[in-house]
Amino acid sequence: MTVTIGVIGVGMIGQDHIRRLTHVLAGSRVVAVTDVDAVRTKEVADSLPVPARVHATGEELIADPDVQAVIVASWGPTHEEYVLASLWAGKPVFCEKPLATTEEACSRIIDAEVEAGRRLVQVGFMRRYDAAYRAMKRVVDSGDIGSPLMVHSRHRNPSVPEHYTREMAITDTAVHDFDTVRWLLGEELVSATVLTPRRSRHGGELQDPLLMLFETESGALVDVETSVNIRYGYDIRGEVVGEDGTVALADSAPVLVRRGGTVSGRVPEDWRERFLRAYDVELQEWVDAVAAGRGATGPSSWDGYAAAVVSDAAVEALRSGAKVPVTLRDKPDLYAKEAER
Amino acid sequence: MTVTIGVIGVGMIGQDHIRRLTHVLAGSRVVAVTDVDAVRTKEVADSLPVPARVHATGEELIADPDVQAVIVASWGPTHEEYVLASLWAGKPVFCEKPLATTEEACSRIIDAEVEAGRRLVQVGFMRRYDAAYRAMKRVVDSGDIGSPLMVHSRHRNPSVPEHYTREMAITDTAVHDFDTVRWLLGEELVSATVLTPRRSRHGGELQDPLLMLFETESGALVDVETSVNIRYGYDIRGEVVGEDGTVALADSAPVLVRRGGTVSGRVPEDWRERFLRAYDVELQEWVDAVAAGRGATGPSSWDGYAAAVVSDAAVEALRSGAKVPVTLRDKPDLYAKEAER
Amino acid sequence: MTVTIGVIGVGMIGQDHIRRLTHVLAGSRVVAVTDVDAVRTKEVADSLPVPARVHATGEELIADPDVQAVIVASWGPTHEEYVLASLWAGKPVFCEKPLATTEEACSRIIDAEVEAGRRLVQVGFMRRYDAAYRAMKRVVDSGDIGSPLMVHSRHRNPSVPEHYTREMAITDTAVHDFDTVRWLLGEELVSATVLTPRRSRHGGELQDPLLMLFETESGALVDVETSVNIRYGYDIRGEVVGEDGTVALADSAPVLVRRGGTVSGRVPEDWRERFLRAYDVELQEWVDAVAAGRGATGPSSWDGYAAAVVSDAAVEALRSGAKVPVTLRDKPDLYAKEAER
Amino acid sequence: MTVTIGVIGVGMIGQDHIRRLTHVLAGSRVVAVTDVDAVRTKEVADSLPVPARVHATGEELIADPDVQAVIVASWGPTHEEYVLASLWAGKPVFCEKPLATTEEACSRIIDAEVEAGRRLVQVGFMRRYDAAYRAMKRVVDSGDIGSPLMVHSRHRNPSVPEHYTREMAITDTAVHDFDTVRWLLGEELVSATVLTPRRSRHGGELQDPLLMLFETESGALVDVETSVNIRYGYDIRGEVVGEDGTVALADSAPVLVRRGGTVSGRVPEDWRERFLRAYDVELQEWVDAVAAGRGATGPSSWDGYAAAVVSDAAVEALRSGAKVPVTLRDKPDLYAKEAER
Repeated sequence: MTVTIGVIGVGMIGQDHIRRLTHVLAGSRVVAVTDVDAVRTKEVADSLPVPARVHATGEELIADPDVQAVIVASWGPTHEEYVLASLWAGKPVFCEKPLATTEEACSRIIDAEVEAGRRLVQVGFMRRYDAAYRAMKRVVDSGDIGSPLMVHSRHRNPSVPEHYTREMAITDTAVHDFDTVRWLLGEELVSATVLTPRRSRHGGELQDPLLMLFETESGALVDVETSVNIRYGYDIRGEVVGEDGTVALADSAPVLVRRGGTVSGRVPEDWRERFLRAYDVELQEWVDAVAAGRGATGPSSWDGYAAAVVSDAAVEALRSGAKVPVTLRDKPDLYAKEAER
Repeated sequence: MTVTIGVIGVGMIGQDHIRRLTHVLAGSRVVAVTDVDAVRTKEVADSLPVPARVHATGEELIADPDVQAVIVASWGPTHEEYVLASLWAGKPVFCEKPLATTEEACSRIIDAEVEAGRRLVQVGFMRRYDAAYRAMKRVVDSGDIGSPLMVHSRHRNPSVPEHYTREMAITDTAVHDFDTVRWLLGEELVSATVLTPRRSRHGGELQDPLLMLFETESGALVDVETSVNIRYGYDIRGEVVGEDGTVALADSAPVLVRRGGTVSGRVPEDWRERFLRAYDVELQEWVDAVAAGRGATGPSSWDGYAAAVVSDAAVEALRSGAKVPVTLRDKPDLYAKEAER
Repeated sequence: MTVTIGVIGVGMIGQDHIRRLTHVLAGSRVVAVTDVDAVRTKEVADSLPVPARVHATGEELIADPDVQAVIVASWGPTHEEYVLASLWAGKPVFCEKPLATTEEACSRIIDAEVEAGRRLVQVGFMRRYDAAYRAMKRVVDSGDIGSPLMVHSRHRNPSVPEHYTREMAITDTAVHDFDTVRWLLGEELVSATVLTPRRSRHGGELQDPLLMLFETESGALVDVETSVNIRYGYDIRGEVVGEDGTVALADSAPVLVRRGGTVSGRVPEDWRERFLRAYDVELQEWVDAVAAGRGATGPSSWDGYAAAVVSDAAVEALRSGAKVPVTLRDKPDLYAKEAER
Repeated sequence: MTVTIGVIGVGMIGQDHIRRLTHVLAGSRVVAVTDVDAVRTKEVADSLPVPARVHATGEELIADPDVQAVIVASWGPTHEEYVLASLWAGKPVFCEKPLATTEEACSRIIDAEVEAGRRLVQVGFMRRYDAAYRAMKRVVDSGDIGSPLMVHSRHRNPSVPEHYTREMAITDTAVHDFDTVRWLLGEELVSATVLTPRRSRHGGELQDPLLMLFETESGALVDVETSVNIRYGYDIRGEVVGEDGTVALADSAPVLVRRGGTVSGRVPEDWRERFLRAYDVELQEWVDAVAAGRGATGPSSWDGYAAAVVSDAAVEALRSGAKVPVTLRDKPDLYAKEAER
């Protein structure tokens, strides 16, 4: 009944998932943790209502018979080995994005999962669990707006940390939009172009903003704006333009204040505020699926792979200034009923 | 073709109508003016493209054969005599609110107009010409929301001048709401109650805000809030609650600004900004009606009379704290097809 | 760590709380159940991951040493005895509204809790846990809109069941508004008046809608509309009017659809859709408080008592047509820091 | 005082301007008309309050000493000759878009106007007179959102007539967006790219929708969507993205209707409904400028020329699929203080 979970990586995101599993969600218990930082690992393990076991390595944690399912929240370059080890152990694994840092690594995970013969991997694209995006998908799927012809997506951050590089606008930021659009439209992106408008003075050396253009299999056109130093708040906007109408994310302010000459609503401060509930729902649904003997339900290895290939193409497009094709391997049957969420 | 107009009273509102007729609207020319302030009258007359004739008195202006139609924009207590004189002269007259300052005076105007045998008087309730209120009336009249059961009306001013008295919240401010509700619902108000919430510190000795309650002939319930020192802007809000749905005035900001943690729209600064266009449309439609040989189209003497009686009842209700009936004389046939706008 | 909970009453609301505690929230386990319907009780008990113990009576369940905390979700008239028994047993108890069905019964609960010397009772007013109402309270408490002078509250249901009586618009429906306003303003309601507009054709014999008026201790004026057959959806609207501005609940549609000549957002279908999350948060915070050794945090016995007295006054006002004073007993010190949420 | 106007071309748009000048606006009179359709010309002339003189040709009308100012509303290919003739006659001329049908023709008009030594030509880009776009420009000019980095513009029509060709999405539809962006940002567009998403089934052979991309002198990036068969209404949307925030056109519905599970606002049916007032303001300001001895105030020959060159580049970009530079001649000093509106 209670799913016992081991968490690899107890940095900010790992601790947040542990908090969520322990204090917010039903049906699971964190029983094992590991991290390169042994001191932090011990602290986190001991802070739990029932202290978790501390493992020296991810592999050891995965092998622990008391661990039924694994969350990978460590540094990106380590994701591949832990996801593969989980697959080999036949244990469900929730892997924070990215699935892996190269197309080849993602592909190896797909091979291993296909060999395992069933889905065991879920990738942390939490937007699919956001109430507004789900409402948007329901409208698209209902056919009420006709076939989608265009998608406009806006990804705005008030600011980014010092270490943020120009490629990260693609690989860390817009990667969420890539997954969202693939899921909303139920088709793959087939080409990428990246345009570089005049730079914001807040971005320093960064190329910010960007406007990325993608074509889908059916010929729909997707534009994704990333503005990661826009100061005014964290604002995720999107519109699907169909043949007969459109559906757009609404402003989400819960109250309107009339004061000093304006009527105004709050814009979220950061992604935590905006997607807090989506993270909860994402992990609860994963725990429920694991408890029900289904290895995974949401974004799959294929989705993680496709996002990586699209990101690679977009990075190349940013460097070259040209349109770059997105070339995917054949899709294994295992992922045929993809994008059911 | 061109309607020649005489304007009685060239204070702020009179001058504004002259500006409108001269520089904004089609089909009329101001040919005569008069005011108790002779110097000001002369200045205004001379400022026109074709200087207007200056008359010593309103009666003289009305009698001027070059004046086809009259606008009364003088001090309230003088309205009755000028409107009556216009009626006796058989000339269309547009009278700023109030039609007259007492129920009896209004009633005498009705008698005179009935005797004239046709509508010649229009009262300056400009909200009936506002695009949003007209859209609201269309929805009510369409039956889409079913029979109206309640109306919520909000009349908010950022501040009021020194000379504003507590009765003026009724006679000057809410009187617009009285007319609007009568027109929207197509029925009379039959009782008035006035409630006095805790006072705003910005209102000094004033009883501000007020919440007034009215019953209509059919039993619908109307509440009118006046908040005349609310600082944040001039905000007119309203909702008609029907059996099957509601219709409400929308926020009117033309653009939304995202900045500093909020998404915000502008609230109008004052009634000029909010109802500028309504005044234009009101006067243009009057000029057109006069040119077409119809004496008047919009709010009638009856509407002016009813607003006065409702105001009187509300003032008494404010003083007594009790529910006060609104008792109207029989409605002459002349006004039977009222509220066609 | 894990709070063990006994649930009295396993009808719709009781089962919903059991589902929530078992499948949605962290930190609790339902270990015992009871209900007048023995068959249903057995079914519910057996459906749990770890089957719950079935008790013949509420008293027996409360006495069960394995039960740390109690949820009362039985028929209203039984609330008093179970809450009292829980208090006498020194166990935290979450009681669905109403706290009890008479003022006297509520008062007896207060006496018992005062004797217990600490808060153990929480009443199920879930709106205090709704994100929009919490945002509204933050704005009011911030002082940004100045002192509240008026509150406009709208409580609209698409329809009500056959057995719904005219008093239930007050005791079942508007009672949520009563609690919300007391909490938002941090003060008591001191008088009630109930107005009866023309009736909706959808309400049959029901007096629907109602407009209720309340005065608060400080003189603020509150109007509450109940429209319980309004067809178009479940719509909760509210605005606090302060000296310097206002704060209002915003439309909550997550997406806007442009189609067929309109831009439109969805209105919730019923209270479940609108307040689903509020119920989750309410119960999670209660479980957390119990786990932390605090008996209760949210709406107290005092709040349940005050809501009952206000309801009684409103029912009397509906019958008499007059303004009815709300007379509360002296407030025990135990509840002094009330309304902290 | 009264500006006497001659109108060349009395088709739909010409008649609409005549109606406007005669029945809506102040300060002008239509005294002469001409059109290739002699019967229609006679009818229109005779329908005026004071019948207008009928001229056999535009040149004759321009030469008429009773004509102070000229409106050109004839077929596009004839614009050049009438505008030039007006310039040679030293008469102010309001020319509906396009200024002329080729870059060379526009350039000849510029030469003639420069030789005339003062601005006499105004081009009919009415969006500059729309209240929402003016509010948007005020925000941009205020600096509140920082320097503009991107503009997103959406131009959606419910449907287009049979004769609408794929180039017209650029030359007839998006040309308004070109002018609007140039004016909002106060700078020229320097390159054009046109992308062709999957086609709408409603567009037949038409390439619809289009997404056009433009760079400005400062490097800002502009994307313009044209969707001219989108069925749901006429919807003009736009957002300027600055370094510190954004400003966007708001939904313009005057009322919100709650009914049948939704809260909805009306989308305009067509451009007439959306821009009715902008046309009024445009022409009133032109009449006022002419009356005041200023030949023109708004969009100039230079703006008409620039729009034509941008359109040509976009048409070429549509055909070639490549990015096409926009190359403008040197800007005469006469137009230096351009874009003051």
